[in-house]
Amino acid sequence: MTKTVLIVYAHPEPTSLTRQFVIETIATLEQQGHTVLQSDLYGMNWKATFDQHDFPDRVDNDRLSFVQESGHAYSSGQQTRDVIAEQQKLLAADAVIFHFPLWWFGMPAILKGWVDRVFAYGFAYGYKGQGNRYRYGEGMLKGKRALLSVMAGGPAEEYSARGINGPLEELLFPITHGMLFFPGMDALPTHAVYGTGQLSKTIVEKEIAAWQRRLKHLFDEKPIPFRHQNGGDYQQNILAKHIAADKEGITAHIDN
Amino acid sequence: MTKTVLIVYAHPEPTSLTRQFVIETIATLEQQGHTVLQSDLYGMNWKATFDQHDFPDRVDNDRLSFVQESGHAYSSGQQTRDVIAEQQKLLAADAVIFHFPLWWFGMPAILKGWVDRVFAYGFAYGYKGQGNRYRYGEGMLKGKRALLSVMAGGPAEEYSARGINGPLEELLFPITHGMLFFPGMDALPTHAVYGTGQLSKTIVEKEIAAWQRRLKHLFDEKPIPFRHQNGGDYQQNILAKHIAADKEGITAHIDN
Repeated sequence: MTKTVLIVYAHPEPTSLTRQFVIETIATLEQQGHTVLQSDLYGMNWKATFDQHDFPDRVDNDRLSFVQESGHAYSSGQQTRDVIAEQQKLLAADAVIFHFPLWWFGMPAILKGWVDRVFAYGFAYGYKGQGNRYRYGEGMLKGKRALLSVMAGGPAEEYSARGINGPLEELLFPITHGMLFFPGMDALPTHAVYGTGQLSKTIVEKEIAAWQRRLKHLFDEKPIPFRHQNGGDYQQNILAKHIAADKEGITAHIDN
Repeated sequence: MTKTVLIVYAHPEPTSLTRQFVIETIATLEQQGHTVLQSDLYGMNWKATFDQHDFPDRVDNDRLSFVQESGHAYSSGQQTRDVIAEQQKLLAADAVIFHFPLWWFGMPAILKGWVDRVFAYGFAYGYKGQGNRYRYGEGMLKGKRALLSVMAGGPAEEYSARGINGPLEELLFPITHGMLFFPGMDALPTHAVYGTGQLSKTIVEKEIAAWQRRLKHLFDEKPIPFRHQNGGDYQQNILAKHIAADKEGITAHIDN
């Protein structure tokens, strides 16, 4: 069955490895018959900073509360056009792929600003106006898949279990768990290319081939098994005593 | 002895809790005789997106490589004025305090964009033009202290050792370890205020008093004991076998 996939990417250089991957993503998915939507953040000149201009019609003109104004703008249809367009793409998508270079162990600011602005109250949090009731596996984006494709300058070993940077998937937990699984998406294990500053043409070709193979399983791969907030593993949003009883920290939220 | 402290903050609303903390920081530090420098990112209309405009004099006009152009701009004195000014403040500071609301478990985009743009090659990475030789405890910013003051909407329990969001300090590891300790700064344990959406005036006063007390120890508090890259705990940037032998993941990089 054909699906719709949204690609959100954050690199301005058309010949960069990030953009080469984007081109491959589009080609591979279209070849499979899928519909591809794109958000080329640099190309769109995406406004990164979340500020008063996101709220043309304020509840409170004297004091800016982001949560309050976000909820009001979303529920009253007063969001800015660029934000509405991105939300509509997200709603249309069966899967979302993010392509970006890893800058300081996270997203480039332009992509973080996409999340800050698009993930509105009522849309990605405060679902159904019920605070934190629907979250981590439930929410507006439930049933969709999400996949990070990151380009890291450093070598793979430095992102390994005992590598000096910390394991990549733990560094990205605030994104996979906190931004993607939070509003309901199933986050797949991150796809990374390492040592991107000095890859030979041969290695680039191998990496692209590996990515094409991976993409073919976009809809049947097993997501990261994050525990669902309302699935019985938590009591008042704390891990229940019998769950991962000997563990604490971010990895305890993965049901391995 | 009087010191110089840089405060970098990211909230546009003057009456927000973030900004109330900023006011207290300035008052408390000045009362102690310290010199306070400020970077009010919203007030400065800080450019969040790192792009071609950061490199007015390019090495390569055909292809944009951020690392290459960052290194060239830094070493040849061709950086933009706003970036140079921030680097000079960092160099003048004995400590840097970051005040920001926690948005999606990380920095607001405007602050991430401050790091993306100001932490140039040759300044915060690629120190002395020697790639990753000086890093994690060594580098241009060695000897300075850094402290995050974050405002979290959710309750403290959800950020506890087994809370559903993950422990706050682990979520912020990409910042404390990856952005602050990386170029040499000693990162102090994060100061957080939780449940910021619904604090009574009494609680706010208590939180501000706690922050004032904490600030008095800015220069004698013990930093997070991150392991130094070149201190003997790593072999080729992997934890040596005898170090934290039973551990892996981000917490293994803390020498508790």
